[in-house]
Parts: sequence; structure tokens; C-alpha cells
Amino acid sequence: MKRAEGGGEQKEVVSLETLSKKMDDFAKARDWEKFHSPRNLLLAMVGEVGELSEIFQWKGEVARGLPDWKEEEKVHLGEELSDVLLYLVRLSDACGVDLGKAALRKLELNAIKYPVKQTDHSSSNINLKEEN
Amino acid sequence: MKRAEGGGEQKEVVSLETLSKKMDDFAKARDWEKFHSPRNLLLAMVGEVGELSEIFQWKGEVARGLPDWKEEEKVHLGEELSDVLLYLVRLSDACGVDLGKAALRKLELNAIKYPVKQTDHSSSNINLKEEN
Amino acid sequence: MKRAEGGGEQKEVVSLETLSKKMDDFAKARDWEKFHSPRNLLLAMVGEVGELSEIFQWKGEVARGLPDWKEEEKVHLGEELSDVLLYLVRLSDACGVDLGKAALRKLELNAIKYPVKQTDHSSSNINLKEEN
Amino acid sequence: MKRAEGGGEQKEVVSLETLSKKMDDFAKARDWEKFHSPRNLLLAMVGEVGELSEIFQWKGEVARGLPDWKEEEKVHLGEELSDVLLYLVRLSDACGVDLGKAALRKLELNAIKYPVKQTDHSSSNINLKEEN
Repeated sequence: MKRAEGGGEQKEVVSLETLSKKMDDFAKARDWEKFHSPRNLLLAMVGEVGELSEIFQWKGEVARGLPDWKEEEKVHLGEELSDVLLYLVRLSDACGVDLGKAALRKLELNAIKYPVKQTDHSSSNINLKEEN
Repeated sequence: MKRAEGGGEQKEVVSLETLSKKMDDFAKARDWEKFHSPRNLLLAMVGEVGELSEIFQWKGEVARGLPDWKEEEKVHLGEELSDVLLYLVRLSDACGVDLGKAALRKLELNAIKYPVKQTDHSSSNINLKEEN
Repeated sequence: MKRAEGGGEQKEVVSLETLSKKMDDFAKARDWEKFHSPRNLLLAMVGEVGELSEIFQWKGEVARGLPDWKEEEKVHLGEELSDVLLYLVRLSDACGVDLGKAALRKLELNAIKYPVKQTDHSSSNINLKEEN
Repeated sequence: MKRAEGGGEQKEVVSLETLSKKMDDFAKARDWEKFHSPRNLLLAMVGEVGELSEIFQWKGEVARGLPDWKEEEKVHLGEELSDVLLYLVRLSDACGVDLGKAALRKLELNAIKYPVKQTDHSSSNINLKEEN
């Protein structure tokens, strides 16, 4: 279901597979597959991580939701976040890794590695918000 | 449809929204939201990019599909790719950026920035652009 | 002169050339030169940048001088800063770049790119530019 | 001694302390010290690592010494390597870490961690080139 209940902004449902397919079509149409070796893509991604970091570099601590940022800064941020994502998806494909499957598995491993402390959050996590 | 036609390995359909929701639940259940400021998450992502790079650092050029890699190396790679993805998704959320939407938009911008040269790829790529 | 005047901690004078020579001897003695191609070293450096970032990732804003850090954290930090430096020096050598010379030149370019505003800092900073 | 014996290109001797002092003067003269918190500088350095990576991203494997690169590419490379170095030096200072001292210590630790195999290289390392 894409519809958000009760109004508010609707979040688009985008799968990693869709992005993977679009990146693949994009590279094929431009004959760029020859450039898309794993280490080339990895370094391209590191380049984008650098551009993302530049956005945050002189800002000091930044509040969640970026309340003080201009709209154009947020748009720019969205572009850099996307560039990292798109190269990450493409790198995964170049390596034959199913990124979505791997990410779900990693979340399960993380849940085992960092178990929830039941005693601290006894009744349906009702106390979680107190300190937050 | 998750089923792949005609056999072969079936790729799981995983949306960014699913990962976002799972990361959010994960953080809430452990009372980790207080740590998830934008710059903390960005640096955590840079840390994971470093771990990903370490996998490739002494290998020289690596062939697409990683034909010579051991299975355990590929599993490890999938974990590091996932760690980058998960922090990227979480960072986007912390910034109030709809990553899926932004990525689709960025793909459109890229298609404008790098137009397909019709003359070079007239016959073989003519269908590629329909979906793109 | 290595001696600091008037007491206080004495800072060691270490040149990039010394580090370069030591890295070269180190690699030769272990027959590691074959691994030290430019892109291998670059990815190794990115790996170390990741480890450096991990030290800072969950700390929120950090005050200059790290007044609240434990001694062992500072030692660890020094090691990670060093790892980045050592691979950077080695990468420069693998590329045939004289890093010290390049850095001095870049400082000059920066001084041209970002001129000092005389009016703002007339009295207190007037001597700063002599050496720069 | 800065003079290289027997002709050839002369390498400039540049110490980390010189760079540190010049960066400090540079920042003071521009009233930029207020921006130079540890995490700001770290992110700025990550940004420069990204720019450095971009130089290498589509090149596939690159030979030592960069024999096929144009002079202007090498100059650009020197600038990006320098930017990483300068922020690294500045970050170390912001953290109160003596980078030169730390680097020498790290080299000693590395020598202990990775001892030279005496048996393989018995007489003054003459056999170093054989497969290690």
C-alpha cells in the first residue's frame, strides 16, 4: 500500500531491485558497463561519500530533521545521499551480491548481536521514550 | 511478483521503506535514537565504507561477479555492503529525506545530464530507454 | 632545533621524507612492494579513514583538545591518525608525488584563494602573513 | 641536508610541524579557528578523501609512478593528496595529538606486529624479490 493514512506526505515505495534495474539500463544505454568494475564503483562511491560529508563539514552538530536548513540545501543533500545509494546498488550488482537480501540478513544478525534488554523495557517499550 | 520466471535464483524484493522501518524499530527497542543524530550516523557510515574498502584493498583489480572469491568472503562483503546501506537509510531518515524518492529523481537528473547518444547505440539499445 | 623554549612538552620534528623512507624500508624488508599499487594504497587509506571515523561516530560534538577523553582513547586516536598519514605518504610515493612540496604549494594556493581581510583583523593578525 | 647527491630531482624536506604551524597561522589570520572543531575537520578530510578517490575512480588499475598520466592530472593529484594531509595535520592539532610522534610510534608497533622473516631473507635481504 502506498497510501498514507490520514493525510500527510506520502512516502514513495522504492525497491532496491527497481534501482538496480534502472542503473543497469542506464549503464547499458551509454555503454558504460565497461567502466563498472567493482573497484571503480567502490571508488566512485567513496567520492560520493566525500561530497555528502562536505555538506555537513562546517556545520557543527546538526539537529534531526535539519530544522534550520534551507530547502535547496535539503535538495542537494537528497542528491548526494542518492548518489551514494546508486553506486552502492551498482557495486553490489557488480559483485553479484543481492543487496536487499543481504541487508535483511544483516538486520537479523544485528538483532542477535544486540538483544533488546527486556527488563529495561518491560511493557511494550513504554519507557523507551522517557529519556529520549 | 517475487517469483523469477524460468527458474534461476530468485531475488528478494526489498524496499527502502522496509529497511527504514526495521531500522527505526531496532533503534527504538534499544533506546538508541538518542545516538542517531545526522553527523553521528554519517560518521558511522564512513566507518562502514572503510570496512568495505578493506575487503578490496590488497586485491588489485577485481573481476565482475568476483569469480575467484571464496563463499565466506562474499558473505562478509554482503555484510559490509549492508552496513553501508543501513546507515545510509538511517541517515536519510534522520535528515527527513525520502531516500527512495530522491534516488528516483536523481536517476532522472542523470538521464538528462548524460543523454544517450542515439547514433552510437541505435539498434541494440533502442528499447532500453522506454522504461528509463 | 627540537628544544621547546621555556619548558612544556617538546614536540618531535618529523619530516614527511623520514616517514616515506621508513615506509619504503618497511615494505622492502617484507617484500610488500608488490602490494603497494596506487589504488591498493588508496583503498587501504580509506579503510583507515573509516577506523578513524569510528572513534568519533557516537560522540556527538567533541571539544578541541578532547578534554573528556581517556588517555587510552587518545592513544588509539593517535594510532588511527598515523595509519591514515602513513598510507597517504606511501600512496604519494607510489604515484611519484612529492607530498611535502605539493602541500607547501597547496598552502600558497589556498592563501591566494582565501585572502586575509585586512580590515577585519588589522592589528592582531598583521604579522601572521609574513611567514605564510 | 636538502641537497640530493649526484644530481636528480631534489626532494624538499617538509616537517609535519611546519605544516601544522602554517595551518594554524592560516586559520588564525582568517578567524577560522571557530570552525576547526575535531568533527568538522574530520568531515572536511573525508570530503578531500572523496575528491582524491574521484581522480582514480574510472581508471581501472593504475601503474606505480603513473606513467600514462598527463602532467596536469598529476598536479591535480598532488593538490588532493595535500588537502587530505593538511586536514589530517589540522585534525591532529585540534585533538592535541602530536602526529609526527604518533606516526613514529606506530611504525615501531607495525614492525613488532609484522616482523621480518629472517630465514627468508638471510643475507642482507638479497632474496627479497622471491615470492613471499
